[in-house]
Amino acid sequence: MTQSFFPPHRVLMGPGPSDVSPRVLGALGRPTIGHLDPLFVNLMDDVKGLLQYAFQTDNALTLPISAPGSAGMEACFVNLVSPGDTVIVCRNGVFGGRMQENVERCGATAIMVEDDWGQPVSLDKVAAAFSAHPEASLLAFVHAETSTGARSDVAALCALARKHGALSIVDSVTGLGGIELQVDAWGADAVYSGTQKCLSCIPGLSPVTFSPRAVERIQNRSHKVQSWFLDMQLVMGYWGGSSKRAYHHTAPINLLYALHEALLMLREEGLEAAHARHRLHHQALVAGLGALGLEMAVAAEHRLPQLNAVRIPEGIDDTRLRQTLLQDFNLEIGAGLGALAGKTWRIGLMGQACNRSNVILCLTALSTALQQQGLATDTGAALVAADAVLQA
Amino acid sequence: MTQSFFPPHRVLMGPGPSDVSPRVLGALGRPTIGHLDPLFVNLMDDVKGLLQYAFQTDNALTLPISAPGSAGMEACFVNLVSPGDTVIVCRNGVFGGRMQENVERCGATAIMVEDDWGQPVSLDKVAAAFSAHPEASLLAFVHAETSTGARSDVAALCALARKHGALSIVDSVTGLGGIELQVDAWGADAVYSGTQKCLSCIPGLSPVTFSPRAVERIQNRSHKVQSWFLDMQLVMGYWGGSSKRAYHHTAPINLLYALHEALLMLREEGLEAAHARHRLHHQALVAGLGALGLEMAVAAEHRLPQLNAVRIPEGIDDTRLRQTLLQDFNLEIGAGLGALAGKTWRIGLMGQACNRSNVILCLTALSTALQQQGLATDTGAALVAADAVLQA
Repeated sequence: MTQSFFPPHRVLMGPGPSDVSPRVLGALGRPTIGHLDPLFVNLMDDVKGLLQYAFQTDNALTLPISAPGSAGMEACFVNLVSPGDTVIVCRNGVFGGRMQENVERCGATAIMVEDDWGQPVSLDKVAAAFSAHPEASLLAFVHAETSTGARSDVAALCALARKHGALSIVDSVTGLGGIELQVDAWGADAVYSGTQKCLSCIPGLSPVTFSPRAVERIQNRSHKVQSWFLDMQLVMGYWGGSSKRAYHHTAPINLLYALHEALLMLREEGLEAAHARHRLHHQALVAGLGALGLEMAVAAEHRLPQLNAVRIPEGIDDTRLRQTLLQDFNLEIGAGLGALAGKTWRIGLMGQACNRSNVILCLTALSTALQQQGLATDTGAALVAADAVLQA
Repeated sequence: MTQSFFPPHRVLMGPGPSDVSPRVLGALGRPTIGHLDPLFVNLMDDVKGLLQYAFQTDNALTLPISAPGSAGMEACFVNLVSPGDTVIVCRNGVFGGRMQENVERCGATAIMVEDDWGQPVSLDKVAAAFSAHPEASLLAFVHAETSTGARSDVAALCALARKHGALSIVDSVTGLGGIELQVDAWGADAVYSGTQKCLSCIPGLSPVTFSPRAVERIQNRSHKVQSWFLDMQLVMGYWGGSSKRAYHHTAPINLLYALHEALLMLREEGLEAAHARHRLHHQALVAGLGALGLEMAVAAEHRLPQLNAVRIPEGIDDTRLRQTLLQDFNLEIGAGLGALAGKTWRIGLMGQACNRSNVILCLTALSTALQQQGLATDTGAALVAADAVLQA
């Protein structure tokens, strides 16, 4: 007979979900009200305003899609791509490949710009792709590659797209809240994110924002959006600013309570302070990992502070080590994804998970687990190195 | 400055969301663990088994889509429809129209079978449509029309589809858990539902089930599914029975905790007992409404016990009345939808909301609000009539 499920308390330092604050879990579990209740409609407006702050945008079309990040990605593509279009897609990790799938399923052509995994997107290659394909109407790339831990230059890439008369789609699933993202100042046209990364909310929603230029393209489509659920003209009617909302689907009420609380916490801390916290603890973690003799997989200048890709030392059993962390320390770190499976670990320092205790726990647990597999490490040295950064 | 959101405790007797049990809210708020955590993978298996019980099916492909019911609808259509197909779509309320949208956005032709709102789908008309369109490969209809409160005959409609070599897609968003639904015995090929109706879970997930015949059609597609997020071949790899799961998207962890608990409660009560409870309280409500002089909008033999469409008496201000219920009684009932807006109320008795206290509250509140608008009603008579049914 199946029983009620009582999860253990894990420390979530993988690629997401990240640690969720008790404040957010508390909000999540509050009584459900109707999705057309005037109080809920007010909450939707608040969430919109808080998301505009997080995205640093005045875009009116800023809201959470009622499904995970993959659906947010799809919402951007199905609304901005029409059959026959040419889209330049940058692939420097798993998620560029997923973008290609989206473009092709829209009946459009994806021109792939390839960079090595762990490298940022190359501006020169993108410029060359635009020269070779002046008909391209869209540039799509990943801000913070969750599969590799590399950061790309959103401002420069969006400027390139504009220069060539194209719109931009930016995947910032892992970026939002952890590193700088200036949607308006950088001229990004469509950005999607997730709630379970640096916002430290539970998974299940995908914040998106569309520039006025993107909205104009959506409104001028001659071909209906292939997804009814993700058709932004319909979603707009539900989330729109007017007092009269058109029923589209039932919003996942309690998830919105949780997102609202997580966004409040971000605003209370302030974006710049949150970014600084991510940088600082990242530096501390890197110092500690170095003292353990571990190597980072991404060059320092391209590293995401919130997602640290670490090379697995020769002779270490990846699966066994992560099992030790989970079973003996209730600590989750991420495995490598795609081409990096078995070669790297992905250690997240996302949102609420980005704190001193977690850095200490992670270094201690890793060191212990490596020792169990015969590697000589110095736990004390790692903790001293990390704390030196934090005290500086 | 935006503040934390503390919702009032509403009684939810609209068309969904329905009252959510404290047990389910408690499960929802438990600590988040990783979506690849072995403990979470076990939970996914449990949820699958419990959904098979709720759907009365052995279908291996039975799982909750990580998005609301509208996405479950879309998952059924995009996976089973290919461009150029002919699909017979029955419309006897709002949701048949949405099915038509889905069919057309798949590049297929929808042959509409129209019935009056409030009527069940006519078997004769469907048979005639199959005769006129022997090429039709799919029949789509709504089991429990949330917009009208009418029930259609799933067993007979699925048998008709089979007889004509077509598969069936059944919308049981409002049906599952409230009235009989025998997926295997009735030969339904694809069924989607929602969590926020008779399962009394929060909104945000859409349970679906696909028969082996449906899976075969999906596997033999020559045209890629237009949605990456809803492509069941990919979703299967994530939810599949094998020990090795392929990462597809991040499941909305805490929503699965909640659904698991809600399904446990359904199994503890038993499907037949749950159906009987819905029937009994429906009869009590109808008796009470009758004593207040209100008329039901659907003929007795076609009524859904979980969704009671009631005609708004002449001269009554619909909006004002529902505001009174909400403000003075914390009670939500539903407005009419589409063609029935302003003409009916929709009173839900779904899942946990289907209980004696709610029947009493609803009759008392309605009577009071009607009196405020000058209608002479007898609250006592209504309560006596309802209780006579419950005591019988």
